[in-house]
Amino acid sequence: MMNATLEENLSGIANQLRIDSIEATTAAGSGHPTSCCSAADIVAALFFGHMRYDPKNPKYANNDRFILSKGHAAPLLYSAWAEAGLFPREHLKTLRELNSDLEGHPTPRLSFADVATGSLGQGLAVGVGMALCARLDNLDYRTYVLLGDGECAEGSVWEAASLAGVKQLNNLIAIVDCNRLGQSEPTSLGWDTDAYRKRFEAFNWRTEVIDGHDMEEILEVLGAAGLGKQPLAIIAKTVKGQGISFAADKEGWHGKALSKDEAGKAIAELQPKAKSGVAEAIQAPSNLPLPKNEAPASYPAPNYKIGDMVATREAYGSALLRIGEVDQRVVAMDGDTKNSTYADKFFKKFPDRSTECYIAEQNMVGVASGFSTRGKVPFASTFACFFTRAYDQIRMAAISQGNVKLAGSHVGVSIGEDGASQMGLEDIAMMRAVHGTVVLYPSDAVSTEKLVEQMALHKGVCFLRTSRPKTPVIYNNDEAFPIGGAKVRRQAAGDKLTVVTAGVTLFEALKAADALAKDGIGVTVIDAYSIKPLGSDVIRAAAQKTNNLVVTVEDHNPEGGIGDAVAGELSKDGIKVHKIAIRELPHSGKPQELMAKYGIDADGIAKTIKALV
Amino acid sequence: MMNATLEENLSGIANQLRIDSIEATTAAGSGHPTSCCSAADIVAALFFGHMRYDPKNPKYANNDRFILSKGHAAPLLYSAWAEAGLFPREHLKTLRELNSDLEGHPTPRLSFADVATGSLGQGLAVGVGMALCARLDNLDYRTYVLLGDGECAEGSVWEAASLAGVKQLNNLIAIVDCNRLGQSEPTSLGWDTDAYRKRFEAFNWRTEVIDGHDMEEILEVLGAAGLGKQPLAIIAKTVKGQGISFAADKEGWHGKALSKDEAGKAIAELQPKAKSGVAEAIQAPSNLPLPKNEAPASYPAPNYKIGDMVATREAYGSALLRIGEVDQRVVAMDGDTKNSTYADKFFKKFPDRSTECYIAEQNMVGVASGFSTRGKVPFASTFACFFTRAYDQIRMAAISQGNVKLAGSHVGVSIGEDGASQMGLEDIAMMRAVHGTVVLYPSDAVSTEKLVEQMALHKGVCFLRTSRPKTPVIYNNDEAFPIGGAKVRRQAAGDKLTVVTAGVTLFEALKAADALAKDGIGVTVIDAYSIKPLGSDVIRAAAQKTNNLVVTVEDHNPEGGIGDAVAGELSKDGIKVHKIAIRELPHSGKPQELMAKYGIDADGIAKTIKALV
Repeated sequence: MMNATLEENLSGIANQLRIDSIEATTAAGSGHPTSCCSAADIVAALFFGHMRYDPKNPKYANNDRFILSKGHAAPLLYSAWAEAGLFPREHLKTLRELNSDLEGHPTPRLSFADVATGSLGQGLAVGVGMALCARLDNLDYRTYVLLGDGECAEGSVWEAASLAGVKQLNNLIAIVDCNRLGQSEPTSLGWDTDAYRKRFEAFNWRTEVIDGHDMEEILEVLGAAGLGKQPLAIIAKTVKGQGISFAADKEGWHGKALSKDEAGKAIAELQPKAKSGVAEAIQAPSNLPLPKNEAPASYPAPNYKIGDMVATREAYGSALLRIGEVDQRVVAMDGDTKNSTYADKFFKKFPDRSTECYIAEQNMVGVASGFSTRGKVPFASTFACFFTRAYDQIRMAAISQGNVKLAGSHVGVSIGEDGASQMGLEDIAMMRAVHGTVVLYPSDAVSTEKLVEQMALHKGVCFLRTSRPKTPVIYNNDEAFPIGGAKVRRQAAGDKLTVVTAGVTLFEALKAADALAKDGIGVTVIDAYSIKPLGSDVIRAAAQKTNNLVVTVEDHNPEGGIGDAVAGELSKDGIKVHKIAIRELPHSGKPQELMAKYGIDADGIAKTIKALV
Repeated sequence: MMNATLEENLSGIANQLRIDSIEATTAAGSGHPTSCCSAADIVAALFFGHMRYDPKNPKYANNDRFILSKGHAAPLLYSAWAEAGLFPREHLKTLRELNSDLEGHPTPRLSFADVATGSLGQGLAVGVGMALCARLDNLDYRTYVLLGDGECAEGSVWEAASLAGVKQLNNLIAIVDCNRLGQSEPTSLGWDTDAYRKRFEAFNWRTEVIDGHDMEEILEVLGAAGLGKQPLAIIAKTVKGQGISFAADKEGWHGKALSKDEAGKAIAELQPKAKSGVAEAIQAPSNLPLPKNEAPASYPAPNYKIGDMVATREAYGSALLRIGEVDQRVVAMDGDTKNSTYADKFFKKFPDRSTECYIAEQNMVGVASGFSTRGKVPFASTFACFFTRAYDQIRMAAISQGNVKLAGSHVGVSIGEDGASQMGLEDIAMMRAVHGTVVLYPSDAVSTEKLVEQMALHKGVCFLRTSRPKTPVIYNNDEAFPIGGAKVRRQAAGDKLTVVTAGVTLFEALKAADALAKDGIGVTVIDAYSIKPLGSDVIRAAAQKTNNLVVTVEDHNPEGGIGDAVAGELSKDGIKVHKIAIRELPHSGKPQELMAKYGIDADGIAKTIKALV
């Protein structure tokens, strides 16, 4: 009797959420009401009959987490939090307005959205990161991820499913809202819920196939969440537009708000079965000790000698280990390259804080985002070129205001023999273009170490570009490398031109400067270790002393890299920038041969400069 | 007896390929010999006991196709073609040298490599495209894709597997070289071949699990390729370093060439079991009519009236249909957005030439690459922001010298209410940074139509950036839009400044110019429809008439877009560029509200200009 009432009440709340979603989208004149309707029963069951959380404090660290991977059902999420009492229901009608944070897709401008969603197929990876973090922090919150069926075509879903299966994340629950209809046509699998079941089982998940509108079934399978060792996938057969007779299970309704008339009809159908404020009290989360997640007062100093030959990728590994010793927030992940990126130094010392993500870069960045939402400082590493694989996840991490640190090694032609597919030649452009990022490109071990510290202390998405070849240490262990700075490495009165560069080409530029000096041509050389934000003041001041003439040198394609950064920022001050970059599709070869062939070695730089002065 | 001899001979050839791979990598001093050894029997069976192809003409259109998705086993592929007689075996020792096209990972600089591989997990999607193209062209070649087990962690593999299953591509065969060991540690599934079997079966493939070193088993399952309706996945349990006693199945040998001593020992073990030149004659491909794949002499003209209000995304759809009517090379694919990108116009008219790729952008670009290798001109469309999902595939398409056309819609804040996750704000930067790309950004329907023609006629990776809002037609139907051009839309003697822009902001800039004219401030306005290559001569000439002062305006982030392109190319000529771009993380709102809020509407542009002149 008690249970029956609970179920009736939850079904009633689901209908209220449908009404709220319809009203909000109709008021906005756009949105995805039918995508809300299919998932309304599931969300009602989760929020008002199952999850343990503090509805007044969505950020409480041991609340169960809910990720709306199908972000276009945002109005449903907003309606649930209004029903939970976080804000007045009337506010829902500000959906999609400029001055309301109830945006078209959820973002962490809202206290209850841990990450931004809306680029499909990304929620489960974030959930894997959260579930792993729960284990690390000895917390018993569970992570629930609501996916659309359409987004299960994204490979990122299966990357996440694979790692969750391997890690036996029984604190992770995926719910697939299998409503059969995509945006432009039915999904490839339609209502073949058995196909989804087989897929998740093949990835080592426990599965349940249910009627996603049968509250009894929903509660029953949710009640068994957390049992066994496997993550749980609930495949819920649903109807898109459920509850709206004229739109239910019909093509052509995706992403369309109902007209006022249509909304009136739909609400008339739903209202008699709708309830509000009738839920049992929401279950409180357990009161467990919470992790502090505080930065240490300081980090121990690195210890190099000027002239030591150390690849910056190796210094990255040393730095991660060094700061990890004192900064418990630091966790690491890698994509089966950790013996090349040197993340393995950290992995060996701190296995519990390390996650091997295998060759699945999208998931790796999603996992990092998940850790980031829980107060950790995740450092994810692979070859720089393979971060292109996760560009959408990086973009979404920025929209999520995430605190994700990426270290991309093996940049440019200076990797040598492996060839173009392994060379990071677009990474600066890619990372600069994302809102709010920090892009760092150290040349020696000390600057690498110091920049890793800066990354850990800076809130936001940061990218560190490291190189394969060994380079000499040129800075003292106590040199400071603030984000947004640059270092003048060589400068004299009468210099004809300023070279701005970083990484392996800094050393080529210095050699070129030596050679040019013998011909009586003085050049200033700047280490632009901070590409975004750029050390503009340092560069401008130096350039103004050299007749505003600048040459940039980079082991990167010509577009969007150091040259464009300097020109884009400083041309308005009258500074003239000549770019030296990789202008051909590179071949395999020895590092020094390739640097010569593509004009970024000392000879090539000197030749270009001679033609300019 | 005959069969026994064939199998012995093929096993002997496999050992010769192992020897060749070891010798080549030892000569190079780097490479992946153990990854070659695990797959040698499979490759020997395919090349000398199964596939139908002309060994003297690897490009023959009805040859069976072979894609080495695990591109790091390149020496094995090269050795097979040497054994097939395409080039002298001695040439193998030039592996990874600057002047040899036997690069570290395969690229189409080699006649027998249809696509570049080396970024893992991408081969199967290309294979899906090839297999679909075989059907379209009524050819009976089969496509064989050799994958590593490690790369099966990449979601892109499962995107491709899903579409192959849906499309019932029984002309596609995936072979997983399940050697248990990744680069930095064992794979997550190790030798659990049953797990791989279940995964492929869940994605609707027929499967066979075999011993990858048992030639009889290999030939038997290959002999049944093409039977039934499903694609075939062969899970081959193998030993990494097979045949090298001291390296076989041992960790720590990934990506390491053997020393000369080690190579000597290994070869001494292999030589007694090696054979060469003993294969049966390679089976010839069927002699079927081949598609012409020729561009038409001309395209019919578009038909708009000046002032018509048409979104460029809609003009894209019209253009695709219009050129598709006369250009049989044109095929289309979309990621379940075809009713938004307007690709559905082509899909409805030419269903056989259209592939719905569902929400799986990585696979969509891979499929496009596959069609491109077969002489088609594939146009793939989705929201511009979702091409970030396929950035690695786009990068590899460029390294593959592919002829892939991408159309990204819904760019910038002008999409409005859907919010930041749906806004293309990094796409220009991303696409410019890839080697050899063409990046186009039309403002009206006529220029869109003409640029789609240019894309079809240009060989290489091209990107078209289209907008959601309707904009007026401003060009006549016979206006030419060459790649690398720009149009001066407004110019008068005494202009103070040149505005360079494209897309929706062109119209805002023209409005701003009208308003400024009333205040006596004349400005030149340029439609920079070709961002890469940039219409530099037009822009430079205009800027020089306005005291070298340029303002760029773009509905894109400030980095790597139009502003950086203009500054990066023209600052060296003394041109000063002020960038107007989206400098905040955008919110949801109405298009015009957002353009105003972020300073790219007419008022914002006029205000910035007034502060400069």
